[in-house]
Amino acid sequence: MPAANNTSEQVNKPAENNAVRILLDGHGGDGAPDIVLDALKQVITSSSKEAKFGVCGLVEVLVPALKARGLFEQVEIVPSAEFIKMTDAPAIAVRRKKQSSIHVGARAVRDGNWDALVSAGNTGALMAISKLILKTLPGIDRPALASMIPATDGGTFLLDIGANVDCSSEHLVQLAVMGHCYLQAAEGIESPRIGLLNIGTEDGKGTDVVKVAGTRLKASNLNFIGNVEGTDIFSDRVDIVVCDGFVGNVALKTMEGVANLILGTLKKELTSSITAKAGALLSRKALKRVKTALSPSEHNGAPLLGLNGIVVKSHGGADAHGYACAIKVAMREVEAGLIERTIEAMNAMAESSE
Amino acid sequence: MPAANNTSEQVNKPAENNAVRILLDGHGGDGAPDIVLDALKQVITSSSKEAKFGVCGLVEVLVPALKARGLFEQVEIVPSAEFIKMTDAPAIAVRRKKQSSIHVGARAVRDGNWDALVSAGNTGALMAISKLILKTLPGIDRPALASMIPATDGGTFLLDIGANVDCSSEHLVQLAVMGHCYLQAAEGIESPRIGLLNIGTEDGKGTDVVKVAGTRLKASNLNFIGNVEGTDIFSDRVDIVVCDGFVGNVALKTMEGVANLILGTLKKELTSSITAKAGALLSRKALKRVKTALSPSEHNGAPLLGLNGIVVKSHGGADAHGYACAIKVAMREVEAGLIERTIEAMNAMAESSE
Repeated sequence: MPAANNTSEQVNKPAENNAVRILLDGHGGDGAPDIVLDALKQVITSSSKEAKFGVCGLVEVLVPALKARGLFEQVEIVPSAEFIKMTDAPAIAVRRKKQSSIHVGARAVRDGNWDALVSAGNTGALMAISKLILKTLPGIDRPALASMIPATDGGTFLLDIGANVDCSSEHLVQLAVMGHCYLQAAEGIESPRIGLLNIGTEDGKGTDVVKVAGTRLKASNLNFIGNVEGTDIFSDRVDIVVCDGFVGNVALKTMEGVANLILGTLKKELTSSITAKAGALLSRKALKRVKTALSPSEHNGAPLLGLNGIVVKSHGGADAHGYACAIKVAMREVEAGLIERTIEAMNAMAESSE
Repeated sequence: MPAANNTSEQVNKPAENNAVRILLDGHGGDGAPDIVLDALKQVITSSSKEAKFGVCGLVEVLVPALKARGLFEQVEIVPSAEFIKMTDAPAIAVRRKKQSSIHVGARAVRDGNWDALVSAGNTGALMAISKLILKTLPGIDRPALASMIPATDGGTFLLDIGANVDCSSEHLVQLAVMGHCYLQAAEGIESPRIGLLNIGTEDGKGTDVVKVAGTRLKASNLNFIGNVEGTDIFSDRVDIVVCDGFVGNVALKTMEGVANLILGTLKKELTSSITAKAGALLSRKALKRVKTALSPSEHNGAPLLGLNGIVVKSHGGADAHGYACAIKVAMREVEAGLIERTIEAMNAMAESSE
């Protein structure tokens, strides 16, 4: 961890026994470092779990920000010399900004000094640097980006949502294993139902890649329920929906677009007449609950899966509440031993297909 | 048109000069033939346009249904010996049910007896039979299925939505031309803005197929605005969104799923307390307008494009109002000369790329 230990400002606080150790990227995201540290304060105040927290980034920025929140004594600073801007091209940032907060944070996780890294920074850069430094787990070709999507039964786990635009059948099967382990670890679902996103539920639908993946998943020891359609993502039929990153990204952004359209139309209509306004006033609690239930911030924290280390991506525009959700996702992944579970599941998969 | 002319019940009504001639599939869809004929009655009653209408199907079913609605004198029956059920496998129905209402209807359009066919039947069978009988237009490899999607500015035209799960760059470019001609013809938009569905707006995003299509569209004489994302479908940024049929189908069904989730949650919350109920009562007109604006039935009528003949697919579950929208889509396509426009545009495209 070369860059992390050569600044005198750094305070080394020993971790409690078995306490999870979560490192936050102090930069990246629209409101960093303020939103990051406000979120951290929320988590520290509200959580009864034993945990050690660190923030990675420019010392001159982080010290006053931590002090202003009364967090300086509790939170370790892991110094970095620079950080990656949202406008930096990921490919260039990966190679040229090797002392960035994401690089330093990923190395700190790799070296075992921290259990997980949370960042709201540039997704492409975070994915590329994490892959470069942490490497993928045995049997996994590419890391995946995933997201919990609101559904009638609480949520559906969708992956990949943009890390891998072209997926082979083999990649789709690996995504299913990663999703399976994540829901076991982070949500405590013992045998999550896995669906393959397709254009119809019947066998024989879709591209050749998807058809072969379906056959392989059917033969696996996973709880594979078959093909599912876009509508099923939001239903209680399925816990995990697997697709390539192009399709997943389109589905995710389509979801955002429709939700904005509906809530925008609703707002316009509810202020269109005095009667409607009065109605909106009376039902405002109900309307607020709908908005909250569908808010991406409630489901913030997109895990990067398949890496030999835990990394969670917060939405760049998340507020403190949303960022706090991402921190909690990282904590759950560490506590439940996601990495070990994934290694085991990949081994079992390899044995069953031998 | 072998099967169409050998039943004594058939009444030949001459078309008015220049009147568009629309043939409806009397079977297919959840409520056929009742919904089909109720829709037809709505269109005949409300439209001032000169048009001739026909219904294709089993004479013994259609005669009493037309008589019951007082339509028997006005509407021509084009008899068919059988029809394709929603449960029939499309590939088998295409080959084995050659006297089905869709086969007979498509042949009637091919032979110039009718200008367009509207059907709420099995999408796969309708597409396959239309392609087999009508053939594609010069320069177009495969027909496309498209749909108008609700957006803040009224609607965005999305294609392909499921006819072609694997598309080459060349197919995506052809989709753009078909969409361009459709919006010119059916909506009167002179230079519709075309976007390529991708996982980011920057150049260099997405799969190789999408990247090459983007380069080719940039060099074309179409109004290509570049890459768009899932969120943009519902915005006023773009008029036409082009993607392969797998992605388009997922986007469409994701949209349906989110809309159902939001409206369902809203309904639940608005009946959760007396205050909320009172609010819902006062704002019920506003809520109804939201539901109507987003209703798929308002945007019903998915054109099959690229064929040498006009075919429009109505949603199988559409009500009479929805089916009437599909009939009007067919009428607009005929009036505006969609086929001729598409032939011209494909010629221009071929010349510009020579």
